[in-house]
Amino acid sequence: MADASLLETFENPDTSGYVIEHTTEEFTSLCPKTGHPDFAAIILRYGPDQSCVELKSLKLYYHSYRNDGIFYEAVTNKIRDDLVKLMSPKWLELITKWRGRGGLHSRIIATHGEVPK
Amino acid sequence: MADASLLETFENPDTSGYVIEHTTEEFTSLCPKTGHPDFAAIILRYGPDQSCVELKSLKLYYHSYRNDGIFYEAVTNKIRDDLVKLMSPKWLELITKWRGRGGLHSRIIATHGEVPK
Amino acid sequence: MADASLLETFENPDTSGYVIEHTTEEFTSLCPKTGHPDFAAIILRYGPDQSCVELKSLKLYYHSYRNDGIFYEAVTNKIRDDLVKLMSPKWLELITKWRGRGGLHSRIIATHGEVPK
Amino acid sequence: MADASLLETFENPDTSGYVIEHTTEEFTSLCPKTGHPDFAAIILRYGPDQSCVELKSLKLYYHSYRNDGIFYEAVTNKIRDDLVKLMSPKWLELITKWRGRGGLHSRIIATHGEVPK
Amino acid sequence: MADASLLETFENPDTSGYVIEHTTEEFTSLCPKTGHPDFAAIILRYGPDQSCVELKSLKLYYHSYRNDGIFYEAVTNKIRDDLVKLMSPKWLELITKWRGRGGLHSRIIATHGEVPK
Amino acid sequence: MADASLLETFENPDTSGYVIEHTTEEFTSLCPKTGHPDFAAIILRYGPDQSCVELKSLKLYYHSYRNDGIFYEAVTNKIRDDLVKLMSPKWLELITKWRGRGGLHSRIIATHGEVPK
Amino acid sequence: MADASLLETFENPDTSGYVIEHTTEEFTSLCPKTGHPDFAAIILRYGPDQSCVELKSLKLYYHSYRNDGIFYEAVTNKIRDDLVKLMSPKWLELITKWRGRGGLHSRIIATHGEVPK
Amino acid sequence: MADASLLETFENPDTSGYVIEHTTEEFTSLCPKTGHPDFAAIILRYGPDQSCVELKSLKLYYHSYRNDGIFYEAVTNKIRDDLVKLMSPKWLELITKWRGRGGLHSRIIATHGEVPK
Amino acid sequence: MADASLLETFENPDTSGYVIEHTTEEFTSLCPKTGHPDFAAIILRYGPDQSCVELKSLKLYYHSYRNDGIFYEAVTNKIRDDLVKLMSPKWLELITKWRGRGGLHSRIIATHGEVPK
Amino acid sequence: MADASLLETFENPDTSGYVIEHTTEEFTSLCPKTGHPDFAAIILRYGPDQSCVELKSLKLYYHSYRNDGIFYEAVTNKIRDDLVKLMSPKWLELITKWRGRGGLHSRIIATHGEVPK
Repeated sequence: MADASLLETFENPDTSGYVIEHTTEEFTSLCPKTGHPDFAAIILRYGPDQSCVELKSLKLYYHSYRNDGIFYEAVTNKIRDDLVKLMSPKWLELITKWRGRGGLHSRIIATHGEVPK
Repeated sequence: MADASLLETFENPDTSGYVIEHTTEEFTSLCPKTGHPDFAAIILRYGPDQSCVELKSLKLYYHSYRNDGIFYEAVTNKIRDDLVKLMSPKWLELITKWRGRGGLHSRIIATHGEVPK
Repeated sequence: MADASLLETFENPDTSGYVIEHTTEEFTSLCPKTGHPDFAAIILRYGPDQSCVELKSLKLYYHSYRNDGIFYEAVTNKIRDDLVKLMSPKWLELITKWRGRGGLHSRIIATHGEVPK
Repeated sequence: MADASLLETFENPDTSGYVIEHTTEEFTSLCPKTGHPDFAAIILRYGPDQSCVELKSLKLYYHSYRNDGIFYEAVTNKIRDDLVKLMSPKWLELITKWRGRGGLHSRIIATHGEVPK
Repeated sequence: MADASLLETFENPDTSGYVIEHTTEEFTSLCPKTGHPDFAAIILRYGPDQSCVELKSLKLYYHSYRNDGIFYEAVTNKIRDDLVKLMSPKWLELITKWRGRGGLHSRIIATHGEVPK
Repeated sequence: MADASLLETFENPDTSGYVIEHTTEEFTSLCPKTGHPDFAAIILRYGPDQSCVELKSLKLYYHSYRNDGIFYEAVTNKIRDDLVKLMSPKWLELITKWRGRGGLHSRIIATHGEVPK
Repeated sequence: MADASLLETFENPDTSGYVIEHTTEEFTSLCPKTGHPDFAAIILRYGPDQSCVELKSLKLYYHSYRNDGIFYEAVTNKIRDDLVKLMSPKWLELITKWRGRGGLHSRIIATHGEVPK
Repeated sequence: MADASLLETFENPDTSGYVIEHTTEEFTSLCPKTGHPDFAAIILRYGPDQSCVELKSLKLYYHSYRNDGIFYEAVTNKIRDDLVKLMSPKWLELITKWRGRGGLHSRIIATHGEVPK
Repeated sequence: MADASLLETFENPDTSGYVIEHTTEEFTSLCPKTGHPDFAAIILRYGPDQSCVELKSLKLYYHSYRNDGIFYEAVTNKIRDDLVKLMSPKWLELITKWRGRGGLHSRIIATHGEVPK
Repeated sequence: MADASLLETFENPDTSGYVIEHTTEEFTSLCPKTGHPDFAAIILRYGPDQSCVELKSLKLYYHSYRNDGIFYEAVTNKIRDDLVKLMSPKWLELITKWRGRGGLHSRIIATHGEVPK
């Protein structure tokens, strides 16, 4: 089950302002209505403040959605919220791109703070 | 027959402002003059307010146009209007791209509110 | 309903042996289990003997599947059989390529006689 | 009206055996059923014997189909026959590729003699 | 758990010999050593004899591997064996393409009978 | 005026059998009927025997066609013949590719001896 | 130091004959003359007999070359030999592709047994 | 071990303002948590002031990270800091692009001063 | 001056038969007629017997042509001959691809023994 | 010889302000120092005022440079000047792109008036 306690941080080695981007093409959860699997790519971009999310813990956190029935919109906002709460970044952008289901494919974009171009 | 009552919503899980995009390449309706089938891709983008359109209901709603004789322009504006009435989104953009007929292919763009770039 | 009587022929203007190829990317029928629409491209290639299929009648014949619930495999073989019965061509190849449904996309290949490379 | 008398030849400057290929993407004729314009590319390849088709006359000959209502299959075979009659080449291949009409696009291949790979 | 009893067939509508190909890019199982998720595309091609695998049942069968810890090689051979046992096809080819893990990405190819080019 | 006496050779430094290929995209001559300029690319491939064509002399030889009114077919065969006479190569292939004129573009292929793949 | 004892096998789940392919683009060793790092992609293909190489152990085995000074040719043959000794496969092909050094880039291909196309 | 003393400079031959860019696709270090190798491309862009980094010394400096266990974020900021301290450039941008690990691939962007577009 | 004595070998670590390929895109020599620089890519492929050419020595050997005035054909055959004499390989193929001069660009292919596909 | 009297105009059918662009890839003249042929593409863009250049006359005007020995820069400025004198356009841009000679290829840009982006 989706578990934000899996997320770990390490101290930001540099607070002068820089950009971090982590991308996966291997996210999967379940449709809350049909129970069928959904597949997505996730692009995370943020400007770190005091801490950074540790990469392996991020991977395990993403894996924890594997058997959850949850809407695209809810996944996207929950991940955004969990990461903002964890790190209090200067800004953060989370994009989920969902492979098609029933001929429809979707993209959800959630942000926190002022996202630079 | 095109049936807006097929559309369902769920409560927006997050009202902090984000973007939803649903795309299909499998829309079909009939030409009102010749009865011949028309084929289109539809790109829907919107900023949700209190509610979001449920994905499976959107698919069935699109399917309900299958045997309707209706102009490109009418399809595009009716879908825009049905979705705006359903969800009262902050903004919404609907683009239909029609495969060629008689050597002409068309694109129709309808919007509601202030669409961000 | 799929209707082979829509197909018309015209006399082959030349019997010295040549190749005809007609392609559409706008075929649609229904899934016999769920009633949901299926979308396909169809590639027809044949070597005509005494007669050729008339292009507009072929289009209308393809359209007649629009509201039929029928398996991919059955569509492919039925079209192959209807066209072979209509024209008795020297050889014929029919390929259907189906857009994805539930994450699976399919291709069916049916032939008649000796298909040249 | 299609007029084979427009075609001119010049004496083949070399009879040791070589290959000539002329391609146009600017052929147009009319549909014999609807009167609507059809557009095609034409690829002509041949092995000359005593004579070669003169290029400007070929262009004018192609232009002479502009207002003829004629089937794809008939166009292809007629051009092939006119050129074979004109030049008696060792071999000849004529391919017409037709832009879509009603969602169908076609390719017709007619040959004379043994066409090399 | 991987469950071959999910697979259903329907009677082959035509036994004159044709080719069926089903592709998914949404297969996932678990690594038997680490428990981490694996992701694969699967290409299935076969020549049907008396029966064909039903598409929705194939999708559910693929989904049943979701929480199984199983090697790439074992997945590939098991799917091949289950489908051969189900349908007794004239021939069958199953290819799995696995997204990278630890910097290595893999492809496994299993066949049954004489696979045509 | 096209002048084969411009061509020079040097002694083949190695007779064990190898392949030479020279390509230009800057050939120009005149149309013998209209006087308008024609533009071509020329690909020359050959297996040298006792001598090789010197590169600068080949360039000047090609330039000597600049103001000649001459058919595509005649150019191609004359260059082939001049080079064969000059070098007596084991084999030779000459391909001319002509830019479009009046919407037609052409390719002429002339060979000498057994051309390897 | 390169250490074949890191390699582990598991029992081949199916001996009816199939193909396994593992690719990495993250191999690095050192030049034995200058000590500078070399980088390569490695493509391993084989037909398993009684056993298969376990994927994680293969990764660790590749990593064990990290600080070895060793020629391209020796790396390639040693990996081939270690894997053949480990698994006694029906056949095996190992290709290493080395990024450039001093403007030269290289590819080494080593095989065992009869490699299928 | 990462060693900034390896870096050397030479006097900037021109102080009127220009841009220097050095790219490598052959950076490797170790994961500080697992000890497994990480692979990255590094893009360095800067506007030189009084001095420029010497190219061979930059290569050796990058090589000195080979056996260090260090986070992506720390690598990126340390290289940026070492180069800024070395050269005091007008501006500098350092981008690291990391090959995937556990299905995640990352990009880190660190800057100094006002980076032009 | 081109100097075959720069070439060094090392003992072939494996005589079971494999393939080595070295490519450079940085070869330059002078035109023997005009003194202008020529630029080429060189692809060397061979099957080693008792010895292999050492990579750094190959680079220096290629560099030694820098100020030599020499024909394309002579370069190609001399390199082939020097390498065959040095290593007595089972087979060898040398391809030189020359950038354009005076609008002509060339490719020369020299071989030794039976070159596999 | 380059002959501006070949240029003809027709009356501009619309003076509300629009853009005309004519491109050729078949321009050739001679190098004034060596007599060797030069090849260029020419892009002409202008905003017409009272008159427009007639297309066939422009082609013949370009052809009239065929045997002139003239520098790239002189060609470009002369064509610009001839066309400005002929038409007095609101603005005009003439770009010549020359195929390589001796490894250099060139582009010359001449303008008249205020050229829009």
